[in-house]
This record gives sequence, C-alpha cells and structure tokens, in this order.
Amino acid sequence: MAVGEYPFPQMHPVKGVKCTAVSAGIKKVGRRDVVLFEFAEGSSVAGVFTKNAFCAAPVTVCKEHLAKAPIRFLVINSGNANACTGEQGLLDAKATCAAIAQIAGVKQEQVLPFSTGVIGEPLPVQKITAVIPEALQKAHENGWDDAGAGIMTTDTRAKGFSQQFEYQGKTITVNGISKGAGMIKPNMATMLGYIATDAKISQDLLQNLAREAADKSFNRITIDGDTSTNDSCILIATGQVDLPEITDNNNELYVRLREVIIAAHVHLAKAIVSDGEGATKFVTVAVSGGASRDECLDVAYAVAHSPLIKTALFASDPNWGRIVAAIGYAGVPNLDATKVRVHLNETLIVENGGRAKTYTEEQGQAIMGQAEIGININLGRGDFAETVWTTDLSYEYVRINADYRS
Amino acid sequence: MAVGEYPFPQMHPVKGVKCTAVSAGIKKVGRRDVVLFEFAEGSSVAGVFTKNAFCAAPVTVCKEHLAKAPIRFLVINSGNANACTGEQGLLDAKATCAAIAQIAGVKQEQVLPFSTGVIGEPLPVQKITAVIPEALQKAHENGWDDAGAGIMTTDTRAKGFSQQFEYQGKTITVNGISKGAGMIKPNMATMLGYIATDAKISQDLLQNLAREAADKSFNRITIDGDTSTNDSCILIATGQVDLPEITDNNNELYVRLREVIIAAHVHLAKAIVSDGEGATKFVTVAVSGGASRDECLDVAYAVAHSPLIKTALFASDPNWGRIVAAIGYAGVPNLDATKVRVHLNETLIVENGGRAKTYTEEQGQAIMGQAEIGININLGRGDFAETVWTTDLSYEYVRINADYRS
Repeated sequence: MAVGEYPFPQMHPVKGVKCTAVSAGIKKVGRRDVVLFEFAEGSSVAGVFTKNAFCAAPVTVCKEHLAKAPIRFLVINSGNANACTGEQGLLDAKATCAAIAQIAGVKQEQVLPFSTGVIGEPLPVQKITAVIPEALQKAHENGWDDAGAGIMTTDTRAKGFSQQFEYQGKTITVNGISKGAGMIKPNMATMLGYIATDAKISQDLLQNLAREAADKSFNRITIDGDTSTNDSCILIATGQVDLPEITDNNNELYVRLREVIIAAHVHLAKAIVSDGEGATKFVTVAVSGGASRDECLDVAYAVAHSPLIKTALFASDPNWGRIVAAIGYAGVPNLDATKVRVHLNETLIVENGGRAKTYTEEQGQAIMGQAEIGININLGRGDFAETVWTTDLSYEYVRINADYRS
Repeated sequence: MAVGEYPFPQMHPVKGVKCTAVSAGIKKVGRRDVVLFEFAEGSSVAGVFTKNAFCAAPVTVCKEHLAKAPIRFLVINSGNANACTGEQGLLDAKATCAAIAQIAGVKQEQVLPFSTGVIGEPLPVQKITAVIPEALQKAHENGWDDAGAGIMTTDTRAKGFSQQFEYQGKTITVNGISKGAGMIKPNMATMLGYIATDAKISQDLLQNLAREAADKSFNRITIDGDTSTNDSCILIATGQVDLPEITDNNNELYVRLREVIIAAHVHLAKAIVSDGEGATKFVTVAVSGGASRDECLDVAYAVAHSPLIKTALFASDPNWGRIVAAIGYAGVPNLDATKVRVHLNETLIVENGGRAKTYTEEQGQAIMGQAEIGININLGRGDFAETVWTTDLSYEYVRINADYRS
C-alpha cells in the first residue's frame, strides 16, 4: 500500500556521478540488492547518521572513513543490515570497501559502506564482493533509476527527485534517491538517502547543509516511532559544473542551491512516509503557538505516535478526543487546555477545552475520508512552530511487521 | 482476546463498603453502566489521578471534592468519559454528585464522580440521575461482582482482588476492582481502580500509600503508550475493623497491610495488561544495571512501546534485533552497547554488541511461542532497576480501535 502521488521522476544525469545496481543474491535471487556510486575526483561528501547507540557496523565505518579521506565510492546492500554483528560486522563492512578500493585503485577509506535489511545476521561479504567488478563496470551517468530500485527493502516503490536550474549560463542538477518504509522516526530510521549535485561546495558548508536539510526533512518523519540502527543520509557535491567553489552561505548560487537541496530532502522524506508500511493516509501534524521548538515537537510526536489516533485515521473516524488526549499527555508544562485550538485541515474542531461549537461530525468525516489529512494544533502560548509527517496504523502494518522475517 | 489467568475472585465483604451496578442506558440497553459505592462515616479516601493536561471534568471535580469534605460516595459511569466537555462537563459531573447528595443527605462535596468511555460527547446526566435512587437502594456489602462488571468498557473480563488476613484476632480485608484495556500507559490511562480495606488509616498515610502503590503498579503498565484523560485510582480505608487508627508507617499492622494493598494494585494492574486490547502475549520488560531509575524506565518504555517489537511478539518471532534497536534509541546518554546483555526469560540472547554465541533461533522461538514472556535487559552501568508490563500488537488491536465508535 502507498498513498499519494510520488512517481519516480525522469532523472537527469549529475555530472561526476555514476551509479548502478546489480544482483548479489542477498535477498531473492535475481533481485538487485547491491548499489554502487562513483564520484569524480574532487567531490565533497557529507553525511548525517543515526543516533542509535546500537548503530550498525557500516555507520561506524562511514564516520571513520569520512574523517580520513576524500570519498570516491558508495556501496549499498539491501537484505542485510550488518547491525548488532559485533567486531565481525566491522571487518565485513571494511572488506566490502577494500574490494572496491583494490579494483578501482583508491584507498579503502575512500569508500563508504551502507547496509539495510535484517538486523543481527552476518553480512554475506563474499556475495557482495563477487559482484563488485560487475558493478564498477556497469556504473554510468544514467544509473539513477537502477540505484533507486536497488536500495529498496519493504518499500513498494522507488523514491527519486531530480531538478535542474540555470546559473550564469550553466545548468546545475540536484538528484536524490531514498528508501525506507517502516522503523521511521525522528533521527531517521532504516532510512537511506543520497542527494547529489554537480555544483562545487566546500566540505564545511556541505556538512552544515547536510545537517540542516536532514533536520528539516528526514528528522521530521515518523511511521512507527522506531529509529533504526542504520539510518544514513549522504550529500554529494561533485564540482563538475564549471563555476567557482561555494565557500560561504551568503553566496548567491548557494542561496538557490540550498533551496533546491532542502526541497529534495523534503520530497524524498515525504515520499518515504507516503510509502509507510501499510499506510492508507498521509498525515501532516503541524504544531504552532508553542513556547519552544521542543514542546512543539513533543506535541507533534505525541500525536504522530499515538496508536489510538493512527487507528482512528485508518478508520477515517474523526475521533478528535484522542487528539486532545495526546496533546494533553505530551508533557507540555502548565499547558492551558482552554487555549488550545485544533483544526482538521481548515476546520476548527477543538477550542475552549472542548469540541468547537461550529464543528459537526459530518465535517470531520468528510476530511477524515481523504487520503491526505492535516492536523493543525495551536497551543496558544508562544511563537514557535514545528511540523512532522506520519501515516495511519492499519492491519497491513501489523501483517508486514509480523511477517517480515518469515 | 485476553491472555493468562486472572479469574475474578470470590470477593469477601469489606466492612463499611456497599456497592452495586445499575443500568442507565448510556451504552447498550440493559448493560449495567452506573456503579455506586457507599462508605461508612469516618472512612478515609485517597486518590491518584491522570496527569493529562486535558483531564476530564470528573477528575477536576474529584480533586476539588477530596480537598473539601470526607468522602462518602463514589459514582462511576461507563460509556461516556465526560472529557473535553468544557464548562458544561464540570456542571454535569457536579449535578451527578448533587443527585446522590440530595437523597443520601450528605454534601455534594462528599461524592466523587468518575466517567469512562467516549471523549467529547456531553454526559447524559438525566439518564444517570434517574437511576441514582435505585442504586442507593440496591448497594450492599456483596455488590463487588456487580461493581467490577459495571465499570467495564472494552474490557473482556472483570478484574478483581480480594484477600484477608488476621491481626490481633481481627480479620482485615483488602478488596479491589479495576478496568482498562486500551489507552493504558505510565501515569495510568482509561484506567479506573478502586481498592478498599476495613482497617483504619490516617488520611495522610493513606494518601502516601495510594501514590506509592500506584507508582508500583498502574504507573508501570502500558498497552499502546496513550494516557487517558480520566485515569483515577482510589484507595479507601473504612476503619470499621475494631483496631486503633494507623498513623505512622512503622506500625506493625501497616507493614502487613501495605504489602497486601500493593499486591492488590499490582494484581489489578497486571490484570489490565493481560486484557489489553487484542493482547495475545503478556510481556514483562525488566531493566536492571541502569545508572538511574529514569534511564531504566526510558529503556523499558522504548521496548514496551515499539510497534516493531510488539508486532514481532504477536508473530512469536524472536526478532531480537528490534529489541536492541529500541534499547539503542531510548536516549540513554553514552550507552556502551557492548556492555548491554539481554535475556529472553532465562536465555541470553545479546552480549558484546551482538547475538550471544550460545543463542540459537530455536531457543528464541520456543520462548516467543509462550503466552507470557520476559524481556530482561541489563545495561551494565549501575544498580538501578525498573519493570513495566505490556502486551503485543495484533490485528485485533487495530480492529478494536478502528471500530470503537462505529
């Protein structure tokens, strides 16, 4: 199941990026499960990773490699997360990098490894290294479609973004792919995202942008409140367009580029929610009027994680009482319930501590019947606002997650 | 559905307590939905209530009345929560109390009102007041069975506790009933509990005991992470057994009584979990080795609330990777993943940051197939420990909560 329209776009090539997906037999035979990216020399690469204390081996290796050498390759396998695999997991992740480095003539530290899939099983390194030569040979500028499909696990559709704009007579491209369908939560979750541009951005600026864009997108989506051990989001600037390097954030090109790159992140993050496991509804929870950013997020996540609200959304039931209950237990200190106002889309449903006088059940039902629903909450105590995106909770979610390993 | 054995016991009478349940037609016709308790003059009554900022009208009225006058009556309706009902809700709750006060010749403030059911609908006061005379007339010492059944909403079975012990030749009785099946979380949730003894305890000591017992029981259970607007737990000491009033916690009788009263709370809380909406598993999450009580609770709730773990429990799938992922994202500062040890019941499944060498999938499967499962987590960094109780997440949970209002 999936909700809303997120068709995989026509992907323009990004100068200096080659990619492909090949089949290593980690998952079902014939399914492409190893993706390779190659970046031109001189590319800047920045990363944002899961905060899970049990972070997976590839995440540890990524951080180590990013600190050491300019990155030239990414290798991503689906089907096995290489998480909770102890010391052997680290060796396995590095062995994958070494296999690429050896053939491509780069250092092992110039390769970043990524894994997504079942936790706790040893990584089938031999299967991966066996297909590396094929992947290196096949990588090309138009491999984005294959890469988008190759990183999927329980995803029902590939997720992509591609946009171009002109600057001083040059064409600049921003591309991105992402995957993730369950275990999605703040601080990301079996969520992988790869966004690349052919503009040239300094390493420091790129890292700041990667953090900012992730915070506005992948860190604001939640399907089931679970945060994975493997979340990673990588931002690449190849610098292959013939323009000077951007080194400060007042630069005119940076201002335009930043906007497109954030739009890419938001699109790819929302595409993940729209493909949430068993999702039948796409829900935007917008909290305003907070005394702090944190309390807005506390309320937004309390609503977005409430199984009672999520099942009501699944049932298209305008059970607004469950929404106010969640606002009430979100832990906002000294919240004055009589000042809270809640709208479903544009319709006022709660004010003065109870149901709005103007509200009718028919209005609520009409909104809840739609596939995209906005829950808009004003706390009436300040000027801060935050938005998160989530889904409903359906039979299908239970089925997928009860069956995942069988 | 319900799991485990929690038969409604033979309820001994508690001297000084009369109760009954009558049918007011708030829910289905013929179903008993109004419960009345009457306590002998001189009874002490203490309460613990929801922390939800949108607390229901009866909760507000309860707190007000408890501060004013010795309590003589409780009136509990199921089918309507009288929550998020604004000013009218408060008037309605008080009108219910007034109806009892008028007939019984007590002050309105000597009655505590409770409601459980749908949020946001006006309380049908006339239906309730119409059956008050009948309830007052029918209340008797052996009405506990009726009261236990009368407070149910989506519960599949009534929940009771009754125990007697001898002290200085006198028989002391502790009885209790509870209800709740969904929206159960720390800080309680459409959870109602009434525990009474015929011993005599001072008001201050009783209030401390009510808080302590709730913290060890109703505040340690969770089904879906939602906290209701109406949770209330009331502890009554009628003082009708001919023994001196207990005023300090070193008193020999108090030490024994405290133990039984806490046991009553724990039994009634676990009975709620065992009857969790759609529950097929009863899960004890015990976290030890923490550097603080709070971090033990953070980990325990992260595990107990994870939909991925809950669906794996439903599927009897020993997907221990989801357990370590939840431990990892619980937010314990500087958690050393290599020191964490996880047992399923007595079987070690995780150590040194990965699957235990001695662990086999068959062991895990054998445990997960059982109806009662212990997830025992040692954080390896301190001496604090906490336990919470929860359930799995099944199709049935989704069905119940998607259909609740229809």
